[in-house]
Amino acid sequence: MEMHKVFHMIGGEDEASYSQNSSQQRLILREVKPILKKCTDKLFRDMMEMDLPNNNCIKVADLGCCSGPNTFLTIQHIVQSIDEAWSQISDAELPNIQYFLNDLVSNDFNLVFKGLPQFYEELERKQNGRKYGSCHIAAMPGSFYGKLFPDGSMHFVHSSYCLHWLSQVPDGLIPESGKPRDKGSIYDDKASPSYVHQAFLDQFTRDFTMFLRMRSEEMVKHGQILLTFICKDSEEVEGSHYLSLMENALSDLVTEGYIEDKKLDTFNLPIYEPSIQEVKKIIENEESFKILKFQTFKTCLDAGFKSRTCDDEDNRMVRARYVATYLRAVFEPILASHFGETIMDSLFHRFENKLANVVEKRQGLLNNLVISLRKE
Amino acid sequence: MEMHKVFHMIGGEDEASYSQNSSQQRLILREVKPILKKCTDKLFRDMMEMDLPNNNCIKVADLGCCSGPNTFLTIQHIVQSIDEAWSQISDAELPNIQYFLNDLVSNDFNLVFKGLPQFYEELERKQNGRKYGSCHIAAMPGSFYGKLFPDGSMHFVHSSYCLHWLSQVPDGLIPESGKPRDKGSIYDDKASPSYVHQAFLDQFTRDFTMFLRMRSEEMVKHGQILLTFICKDSEEVEGSHYLSLMENALSDLVTEGYIEDKKLDTFNLPIYEPSIQEVKKIIENEESFKILKFQTFKTCLDAGFKSRTCDDEDNRMVRARYVATYLRAVFEPILASHFGETIMDSLFHRFENKLANVVEKRQGLLNNLVISLRKE
Repeated sequence: MEMHKVFHMIGGEDEASYSQNSSQQRLILREVKPILKKCTDKLFRDMMEMDLPNNNCIKVADLGCCSGPNTFLTIQHIVQSIDEAWSQISDAELPNIQYFLNDLVSNDFNLVFKGLPQFYEELERKQNGRKYGSCHIAAMPGSFYGKLFPDGSMHFVHSSYCLHWLSQVPDGLIPESGKPRDKGSIYDDKASPSYVHQAFLDQFTRDFTMFLRMRSEEMVKHGQILLTFICKDSEEVEGSHYLSLMENALSDLVTEGYIEDKKLDTFNLPIYEPSIQEVKKIIENEESFKILKFQTFKTCLDAGFKSRTCDDEDNRMVRARYVATYLRAVFEPILASHFGETIMDSLFHRFENKLANVVEKRQGLLNNLVISLRKE
Repeated sequence: MEMHKVFHMIGGEDEASYSQNSSQQRLILREVKPILKKCTDKLFRDMMEMDLPNNNCIKVADLGCCSGPNTFLTIQHIVQSIDEAWSQISDAELPNIQYFLNDLVSNDFNLVFKGLPQFYEELERKQNGRKYGSCHIAAMPGSFYGKLFPDGSMHFVHSSYCLHWLSQVPDGLIPESGKPRDKGSIYDDKASPSYVHQAFLDQFTRDFTMFLRMRSEEMVKHGQILLTFICKDSEEVEGSHYLSLMENALSDLVTEGYIEDKKLDTFNLPIYEPSIQEVKKIIENEESFKILKFQTFKTCLDAGFKSRTCDDEDNRMVRARYVATYLRAVFEPILASHFGETIMDSLFHRFENKLANVVEKRQGLLNNLVISLRKE
C-alpha cells in the first residue's frame, strides 16, 4: 500500500469532507492549549539563556496539519502562545514566524491556501501587535517519518492526532500466499495473537524512533516538541473499541456476501495505539529529547458533538451519526482503496448502528496522550 | 479586482489546463538554461569567498511557479545547475536544498505536490550524487510583491514569465463614475494616450521596486536573482500584438451584442511590458542589486508548437489554435471573472481566427528580457 497515495482525509469542503467533520479533533486542540502555552513559555526562557533565533525568526512546524478549520485553529493557538510568551520576556517587537504546514502529498493544501488571505487579516486584527506580513505560512508536503527541514533550523514542532498512524502496515501480516496471520482482524486489538501485537509494536518503535531522530536533526538546541496522539488505556475499559465496531461492520458485509473473506483477511489499518510505557521507552532509548510533560486524558467518541434539543432516542442515533461521519472523513479513503467505493455507504451505515450503543452508554472512550519534549 | 482570487492559470490536468498547455513557456525555460548555469557558478564562487551557507543548505525560490510540468522542469534545471556548479568548486557532498515554490494562493499546488514522490525518485536517478531526501520542495503561497521569506535567508531566486503581471490594474483607468479614460482598450498599447501609459508605468515602477526591495531583505549577501519576463521591443515590429487581437475579439463581441460596451470599457489587464531602459532605471534607483547580465531574445507566438505533418492551410489554423489554447489557459480565469464564463468559447474562437494571420506571417513576436542580479 502506497501510503502517500491512499492515506488522506476527505478533502474539499463538502458535507462529507474532513474540513466539515473535525469538531472532535478541534476539541482535542482546545484541551491541549494550556500545555501548548507552557511549551512556548519554556521555549523562550531557554532561548533567552542562549541566543536569539537567527534573523529574529521563529520557525514552527505542524506535522500532519490536514486541511480545514483545525489547521487554522492550530496556527492561531501557536502564534498566540508565541506572542504571549514573547511579550512576557521582552519589550522588543514580536519575532517573525515562518510556519510550515506538513502533511502527506495527497492532503488538500489548496483548500488551506485559499483561506490564507482572510486568516492573515484576522491574525492581525485579533493578535495585539502581530503585524500583517510578520507570519509566513508555508507548506512542506511529505512523510514526517522522513527528513523535512534543514538541520538545526526548527524551534517548535507540533503534531496532533497523527502519530498513532504508522508509516505502513507491519510486514508479515499479509502474506503473499497462504493464510493470513490475523484472520478477520483489521488492527492490533486485545484479542490479537502476540506475534501480531509484536509486529505492530516493532513498526511503531521504528516509526516513532525515526520521527524523533529526524526532528532531533532538524531542531535547534532546546527546541520544543508537543505531541498529542491516541494511546492504550492502562485501565480495563468497558465497551468496544471503535475499530472493533468497524471490524464487525466489515465482517457483517462478508457474511452478507458483499465482501470476499479473503479481501477482509488481507486488510489491516496502519494504526497502533501504544502503551504509555512503550512511548516513554522509545523516547529514552532515542536519547535526543528530555520529557518535560507527560499527561493523558480521556474523551468520549462524541465529545465534539454540539446539539440543542433531541429526545433520548434521537440523541443516541444523531450522536452515533456524528461519530460515524467524522470517522468516515478520516477512514473512507483508505478503506475505499482496498474494498472499493461502492460498499462505503453500506459499511458506514452498519458502523453507525453499532456505534449507537457505545455512544449511549458513554463507552469506547479515547485515551489521549500529550507529551512535550525538549531537544537536549 | 482581488488579484489573489481571480488571477491564476487554469488548474488541474484537463485538456484546457495550463499544465497541458505550457510548451511555449517551457521553451523559454530551455532558452534561459545556459544563463541559469552561469548564475549558479557565480553564486558558489562568491559564496566560497565568504562563508558556506548556514547548515550547508542552499535556499532557493521560484516565484510564480504555477503548476504542471514546467514547475518541475524549473526545479530540475536549478538543482542540476547547483549540483554542477558545486561539483566544480568542491569535492564535499552536495549541499542540501530547501526549495520554495511560490505563486498566488489560488494556484493549483495540490497538483504539484501529487507529482513530488515521482519527481524525487527521478531526481535521485538522473542527478549524479543527489541523494533522496537532500532536496526539500516546500511551497510559500502569496504575492511576490510582498515579503515571503525571513530576512537574509535566500541564496537564489528565480522567476520566469511573471513580472510583466502587475499587482493590480493601475488606479484611475476605471473611474467609479463617468467615462473611462481608455475606452475599449484592455492594456497599455502603442495607441494609448500618454496618461494611460504613465499610469501603467507608475504601477510597474512601484511593483518592480517593491519586488526588488523585498528580495533584497530576504537574500544573503551576494545572493543571485534570475528573472525572465516580456519587455517592449525597441525596434518597430510588424504585425499586431497578441493582446490587441484579444482587444479586437472583445470589440467584435460588443458589436455583435454579446458584451455591453461599458463592460469592455471598464476592463484592463494588469499587464505591462516595460522598455529595457525603464527596467534598468528601476534596478539602479532601488540600489540593492548589481546587474550581472541583461539580455533579450525574441520568440514567435507559436514557438513551442511541435507538429509532424500539416499542409499549409491546416498548419496555419492548427498553429493559431495552439497559441489560442495556451493563452486561454493563462487568460481565461481573469477574463471570465469580468465578462462571465459563457462567452469564453466565442471569444477564444474569434481570437484564434485573428491569430491565424499573425502566426502565418511570423509576426507578433514576443520580446523576452533575461536579467541576472547580484545582491550587493
